[in-house]
Amino acid sequence: MIKVGIYGATGYTGLELVRLLQRHPAATIAFATSTSQAGKTLRQVFPAAPALPLVAGENAPLEEVEVVFLCLPHAAAANTAMTALAAGRRVIDLSADFRLRDAGVYAQWYAHVHPFPELLGEAVYGLTEVFRSDLPEARLVANPGCYPTSVLLALRPLLLSDLVIDGPIIADSKSGVSGAGRTPTQTTHFVEVADNLSPYKVGRVHRHLPEMEQLIGRWRANAPRLIFSPHLLPVPRGILSTIYVTLAEDVTESDLRDHYHEHYDGEPFVEVLPPGELASLAHVTYTNRCVIGLTLVGRTLILTSAIDNLIKGAAGQAVQNLNVMVGCPETTGLL
Amino acid sequence: MIKVGIYGATGYTGLELVRLLQRHPAATIAFATSTSQAGKTLRQVFPAAPALPLVAGENAPLEEVEVVFLCLPHAAAANTAMTALAAGRRVIDLSADFRLRDAGVYAQWYAHVHPFPELLGEAVYGLTEVFRSDLPEARLVANPGCYPTSVLLALRPLLLSDLVIDGPIIADSKSGVSGAGRTPTQTTHFVEVADNLSPYKVGRVHRHLPEMEQLIGRWRANAPRLIFSPHLLPVPRGILSTIYVTLAEDVTESDLRDHYHEHYDGEPFVEVLPPGELASLAHVTYTNRCVIGLTLVGRTLILTSAIDNLIKGAAGQAVQNLNVMVGCPETTGLL
Amino acid sequence: MIKVGIYGATGYTGLELVRLLQRHPAATIAFATSTSQAGKTLRQVFPAAPALPLVAGENAPLEEVEVVFLCLPHAAAANTAMTALAAGRRVIDLSADFRLRDAGVYAQWYAHVHPFPELLGEAVYGLTEVFRSDLPEARLVANPGCYPTSVLLALRPLLLSDLVIDGPIIADSKSGVSGAGRTPTQTTHFVEVADNLSPYKVGRVHRHLPEMEQLIGRWRANAPRLIFSPHLLPVPRGILSTIYVTLAEDVTESDLRDHYHEHYDGEPFVEVLPPGELASLAHVTYTNRCVIGLTLVGRTLILTSAIDNLIKGAAGQAVQNLNVMVGCPETTGLL
Amino acid sequence: MIKVGIYGATGYTGLELVRLLQRHPAATIAFATSTSQAGKTLRQVFPAAPALPLVAGENAPLEEVEVVFLCLPHAAAANTAMTALAAGRRVIDLSADFRLRDAGVYAQWYAHVHPFPELLGEAVYGLTEVFRSDLPEARLVANPGCYPTSVLLALRPLLLSDLVIDGPIIADSKSGVSGAGRTPTQTTHFVEVADNLSPYKVGRVHRHLPEMEQLIGRWRANAPRLIFSPHLLPVPRGILSTIYVTLAEDVTESDLRDHYHEHYDGEPFVEVLPPGELASLAHVTYTNRCVIGLTLVGRTLILTSAIDNLIKGAAGQAVQNLNVMVGCPETTGLL
Repeated sequence: MIKVGIYGATGYTGLELVRLLQRHPAATIAFATSTSQAGKTLRQVFPAAPALPLVAGENAPLEEVEVVFLCLPHAAAANTAMTALAAGRRVIDLSADFRLRDAGVYAQWYAHVHPFPELLGEAVYGLTEVFRSDLPEARLVANPGCYPTSVLLALRPLLLSDLVIDGPIIADSKSGVSGAGRTPTQTTHFVEVADNLSPYKVGRVHRHLPEMEQLIGRWRANAPRLIFSPHLLPVPRGILSTIYVTLAEDVTESDLRDHYHEHYDGEPFVEVLPPGELASLAHVTYTNRCVIGLTLVGRTLILTSAIDNLIKGAAGQAVQNLNVMVGCPETTGLL
Repeated sequence: MIKVGIYGATGYTGLELVRLLQRHPAATIAFATSTSQAGKTLRQVFPAAPALPLVAGENAPLEEVEVVFLCLPHAAAANTAMTALAAGRRVIDLSADFRLRDAGVYAQWYAHVHPFPELLGEAVYGLTEVFRSDLPEARLVANPGCYPTSVLLALRPLLLSDLVIDGPIIADSKSGVSGAGRTPTQTTHFVEVADNLSPYKVGRVHRHLPEMEQLIGRWRANAPRLIFSPHLLPVPRGILSTIYVTLAEDVTESDLRDHYHEHYDGEPFVEVLPPGELASLAHVTYTNRCVIGLTLVGRTLILTSAIDNLIKGAAGQAVQNLNVMVGCPETTGLL
Repeated sequence: MIKVGIYGATGYTGLELVRLLQRHPAATIAFATSTSQAGKTLRQVFPAAPALPLVAGENAPLEEVEVVFLCLPHAAAANTAMTALAAGRRVIDLSADFRLRDAGVYAQWYAHVHPFPELLGEAVYGLTEVFRSDLPEARLVANPGCYPTSVLLALRPLLLSDLVIDGPIIADSKSGVSGAGRTPTQTTHFVEVADNLSPYKVGRVHRHLPEMEQLIGRWRANAPRLIFSPHLLPVPRGILSTIYVTLAEDVTESDLRDHYHEHYDGEPFVEVLPPGELASLAHVTYTNRCVIGLTLVGRTLILTSAIDNLIKGAAGQAVQNLNVMVGCPETTGLL
Repeated sequence: MIKVGIYGATGYTGLELVRLLQRHPAATIAFATSTSQAGKTLRQVFPAAPALPLVAGENAPLEEVEVVFLCLPHAAAANTAMTALAAGRRVIDLSADFRLRDAGVYAQWYAHVHPFPELLGEAVYGLTEVFRSDLPEARLVANPGCYPTSVLLALRPLLLSDLVIDGPIIADSKSGVSGAGRTPTQTTHFVEVADNLSPYKVGRVHRHLPEMEQLIGRWRANAPRLIFSPHLLPVPRGILSTIYVTLAEDVTESDLRDHYHEHYDGEPFVEVLPPGELASLAHVTYTNRCVIGLTLVGRTLILTSAIDNLIKGAAGQAVQNLNVMVGCPETTGLL
């Protein structure tokens, strides 16, 4: 049994992680922390949660665990990561603190100086399907953002192909409300969200943009730039990204489809949908799956990509990474 | 044209009132106040609102208006009411400050001493269908609570009959989330409400209980006590109350139904539903209507009563009261 | 490994059963049938389902399985049950065909003559917590209805006590839409359900009434009659029953609570909530749990009881019954 | 008073039209038809509708009215239009039968031969803001589709400018479920839609594509082609279109914005949103408004455009057209 600790168990991601780990046959939760709810049990915070005691972060028995998960706000995560690494623990960070490799880019998007820029180069970007081979040795894993997971898995085979892309890549993404976190705000009030649909931070201003472009740039030199338009959907969970890419040359949908199948056919959690089928939230909610639909219209490729933002977009992918890090079968606890 | 002012225009009730008054052919809004948003327009607060300037309460030009509506928190409402009355204005208060006639009961349920107990006897309880004749002379109207409107309109004909009731009256009520107000809380977070249904403050602990029992006691001496169980529904608006009353003697549904029709058949906003039809939110949302279904099963009468909590349960009934107060046709601006 | 077959896999209950059994470490699905979709896979019917082949019922290889689950319409279930029993298989029937012990009552509520009344006495009513000891030997299990599961688990300790009840028992129940089945109707159209709440068949006219009264009568002679009011909730899944019982004598909530704990404290899937906590859908959706809240107000007991209608109210309880029937730990595949 | 008739009053569009016309001070409904519900009242079909008698289409007293609205399926609409025109009535057709000017294109997309191709040239396309001057003389108005209304109003100022567009125009549209009509289908079942988001008919296969391209072609020769991706949203009503256009040259957002304001500033129902504000459903539901947001990111223009599909996208625009046709102020009954 691998003993793990969870920092920040009372957000939606933390709760989802607890649920997944409770079912996990090879992992056991040694502690769960909460700043605001220390002293209570998780059951007192969430009606459906197990009665896990919540301790303050500074009282967490780091020495008892092998791996810690960080479901903390930005900055707090970096500091806790450093503490855990210094104590010889391995870290899976679900915040954005170690996703960007360039401290300058981090400072620009997150409005504060990164406390440990020396760790940025070491952190493995935990898009499991892509960086799987780096995980067994990783001390520090930066679990990807929810939007980036849906967009990057859909784009990667295309970017690694030799097809030339014309004009910007457009990702029109729609996310359920749990992506906005559990802290109550006007924006997440039921009456403001229900019966509504709201785009926000469209274009090139959402913090997930540099994260996506960093990977896009790694997969293709001189890639076209990304236009990214998130929308707030009146559902609790799920992300659907509808992605538009115009190609500079003719290709058949069948060839493209073959190319995608080559990339993903062995993957337990990524499914390339059959011709004519488009991704929807119903394909993926409450699962660790990502489904990808391909539609080619002339030279415009329309990719539809769906994940559960709390699972494949956060806690599930974190467990998937844990499995690879510690040598369990990758699907353990996730089917 | 009757000039009116609105105190507290940036809650859900205030916004609904603005919408209704903007359509009202005989009323015009002279000012709208907001503590937190003064200096902005209402359009900057709500995407669908008109561009009404918001002023601080203390800067409201009371001298320009004939009637003021108070959509303020408890206690703040009483103070503003006194200021307006002292300036010779008429007041329609949508808070609970003048609904209870007994200052001791008020203190017990609202946890502070009523500042102007001398006004409690004067205030007309604005359940229009019942206290219509008191409105033309009223200086101060206490607009009923949303739950009480749905429950009291359904119970009144029964309580005024000579049918003996056995055991408690049970009101199982379900309300949309706008009833909880616009301030964001954990309870009203979209993710907590969606796909959920939560009873709360069941039995005899919700503040609307003494309001309902005060009226029940006025209509029938020694009435059985009320068990009132509110539930939070995953919808933005609407209240459905399912009410159970056991009678001590046999009666036919047809006789009961005739009795209800006698009470309500001339009413523009109350409809007794035909046999076999039960009240639902779809009957009433976005209207000022209350629909009432009757089902008699042996000696148990099941009343179903539905209103839109923001309209007949708040802003709509307030406008209905305004119409009667100033001598307009009662339905003006409400159809 | 226990091999099982599922008749009627393309309804919501069938799909849920497939999901649960796929995770079950000791059961394997040998076949799944569908009348309308035979020849397809379940994946072609539901985007998130596994690629299970669907065969016509008459082609199902009964000889390969030990137990069959029937997720069929009434009447079709009885016939298939007989076929399976005749072939020596054990049957868990999720329809209503074997829930009522009296063929006359069945005929009256289901409007056709029961084809095999001789089986009615043999069928074990599969409310696992209550009839657990009858399951290991059972050939035929009648899995309880969803509403009855929520109401009966809440009422049973009270009915088995010696507390005298005064007046009718009132169950005000609210169910998610999956309870109405997957066949599209006007009633289940998204636009009719969303933002709405509709009572239906209130009083003593819903088919689950005789099922509940049969058990109530078994637990207490001369029990008061049941008033049962179902409501259609705008959520996909979950049932909340708010139950009102007036007692003829004084008792303390604490004593009542002790009594409930005695009944349920060893149960893996039933939780008596702590004082002041009320049942909600969020306690139970996507689980096999039933949570029960108790509130005593004078002599009126308010029970709140919540289940997931597709799991504890159908497929989950069926798997719980399977576990007991075949000697697996009762929670296998259900945590 | 203008007397009007409504053919097909029992769909969502017909019901919305009844609601609007009942509030209209200058119009009165002389008849409403229904094929399936003739003999009932509209109140028996919809709980919130007025008690309007429903007659069979062939019994409608055409001679009593000046204008008829057709809320009929394709083909049925064309035949009824011809009957009404032959009787000297004016027609506002809410179906697609007269939207396309080319009978060949119609046959290709609607899979049957147009019965009256000679009328296609005469029909005025009822996008009121654009074809207002043709309405006073119009005998036959083709009310625009819901998606086209949201997309065309957003694109028109751009297309009429001299800015060169590079690559395809991409319209990623999201619609509430009432757009799919009231007939129950698997696709519109509450359980399939709730908590889901589904793209459908993406690219160039939805019937609204030729309608949009016809207008685009009228406004700009050699316009780039349109990629149109509709999505089914879990809300009852509203359409949001997020539109991406890449320009071949540099322009400032401020200049673009001025250009849009020039087009729309006098319009009562179209609002160009202030800088930084994006269109959402909350801006428009239950109104006849279209709001348009502009965001320029480098050379990519992101337009967000929102309407209520049943009002500005159908019944409301039909009333707006009626007002212009008969010489009423254009906003009559629509504020």
